[in-house]
Amino acid sequence: MYFIIKENLLKQIQAGTYPIGEKIPTENELCAQYKVSRTTIRLALHELELEGMLERIQGRGTFVKRKEVQHWVTQPHSYADVVLHAGQEPKTKLIESSVIPIESPLDEILQIPLKSPVTHLLRVRYADNEPLLYERSFIPWSLAPGLANEYNDNEGSLFKLLELKYNMKVHRTVEQLKPILADKTASRLLNIKEGAPCMQMRTFTYLQDNTLVEYNYAVFRGDLQNFTIERTY
Amino acid sequence: MYFIIKENLLKQIQAGTYPIGEKIPTENELCAQYKVSRTTIRLALHELELEGMLERIQGRGTFVKRKEVQHWVTQPHSYADVVLHAGQEPKTKLIESSVIPIESPLDEILQIPLKSPVTHLLRVRYADNEPLLYERSFIPWSLAPGLANEYNDNEGSLFKLLELKYNMKVHRTVEQLKPILADKTASRLLNIKEGAPCMQMRTFTYLQDNTLVEYNYAVFRGDLQNFTIERTY
Repeated sequence: MYFIIKENLLKQIQAGTYPIGEKIPTENELCAQYKVSRTTIRLALHELELEGMLERIQGRGTFVKRKEVQHWVTQPHSYADVVLHAGQEPKTKLIESSVIPIESPLDEILQIPLKSPVTHLLRVRYADNEPLLYERSFIPWSLAPGLANEYNDNEGSLFKLLELKYNMKVHRTVEQLKPILADKTASRLLNIKEGAPCMQMRTFTYLQDNTLVEYNYAVFRGDLQNFTIERTY
Repeated sequence: MYFIIKENLLKQIQAGTYPIGEKIPTENELCAQYKVSRTTIRLALHELELEGMLERIQGRGTFVKRKEVQHWVTQPHSYADVVLHAGQEPKTKLIESSVIPIESPLDEILQIPLKSPVTHLLRVRYADNEPLLYERSFIPWSLAPGLANEYNDNEGSLFKLLELKYNMKVHRTVEQLKPILADKTASRLLNIKEGAPCMQMRTFTYLQDNTLVEYNYAVFRGDLQNFTIERTY
């Protein structure tokens, strides 16, 4: 029964019956409406709260929240899937696509000579028109010549392009997460204050033979999303 | 060959021949010492740099770094294992162990009545005597009566204690990572400035029947460690 109530409330939120920021009926009102116990109502509200749909403010009531985007670290999905799952509209904007001479310390990271040509893609990713993250990709020109011109579908997968156009299949990625403070670039691209908490993600992408094919530096806004890890024992 | 050089340098760092902050020989000096090409030396230094043992500062040389503690998100290990792997000494300090009446919003999270008794453990975890994180555990008294008194081995595993003393086997955990700024408590317990970047981790621990047995709120210092995710495709 609590599941039906939960699904019902969810539908009403998604349909806009209760928009973001709106107060939903009280526990008593919901008890009367569904003719169930307070325990059942609380369980439904609790689950919606844990899923980030609702927010209880003591003494004021329960309000509809903008759903947090959950990045499932242990069950990777595409950016679009993650945002759609949160009931929001994904969008990617390609800000820059160019070939640049690599500077220190990126030459060390990519293990190529200083000033070698490298494709640089700068993308900002949105959910419901709010920027959630920006990412810079660095791919050695020698591995994928002309990539900057090939990459023209903003929503397309870089990994798929590398496979289809350059016959390079991604084998392994290593991602490192660290909390950082927004600098000027993050502030401008993500529409947040300088010094706001952000998540830095550095991704090293390898081919089967351990060639580092891409180094990716991403900065995620600290609000509006989290990184979720699920494990069974 | 680069592997031998890498292992050799690693041993010298661990033996204290090159202590933290010390400059190691230049590439030219190492080429001469090992009678190998510059490419081989650079590969060895590169790997040690990626592993967080060395830091190159342009125009100044290569220095021994305090190794970052890597929390392998996808291959969970105990805190002690993670710290030992970074060549550091783990330690846990139990700051507080008490039974408290649960307050909002924790009553909602644990799905128990407001003011119910709950065991509260506050622990700080160290690596080489530097605090890396603090964590607060909340366990409903009704599930594990007297837990605060049972938990007296600081280094012991809470999950093991729950299994051995209370016959409750942890089945599933859900962890949520978010970047936050250090507040007064984090500043005091972790010896960092207020406003410094930190990682917040909220862990929900469930039994087989979906009972929430522990809610854990942890704050990790942003420096000195990272969260690493490895994937193969």
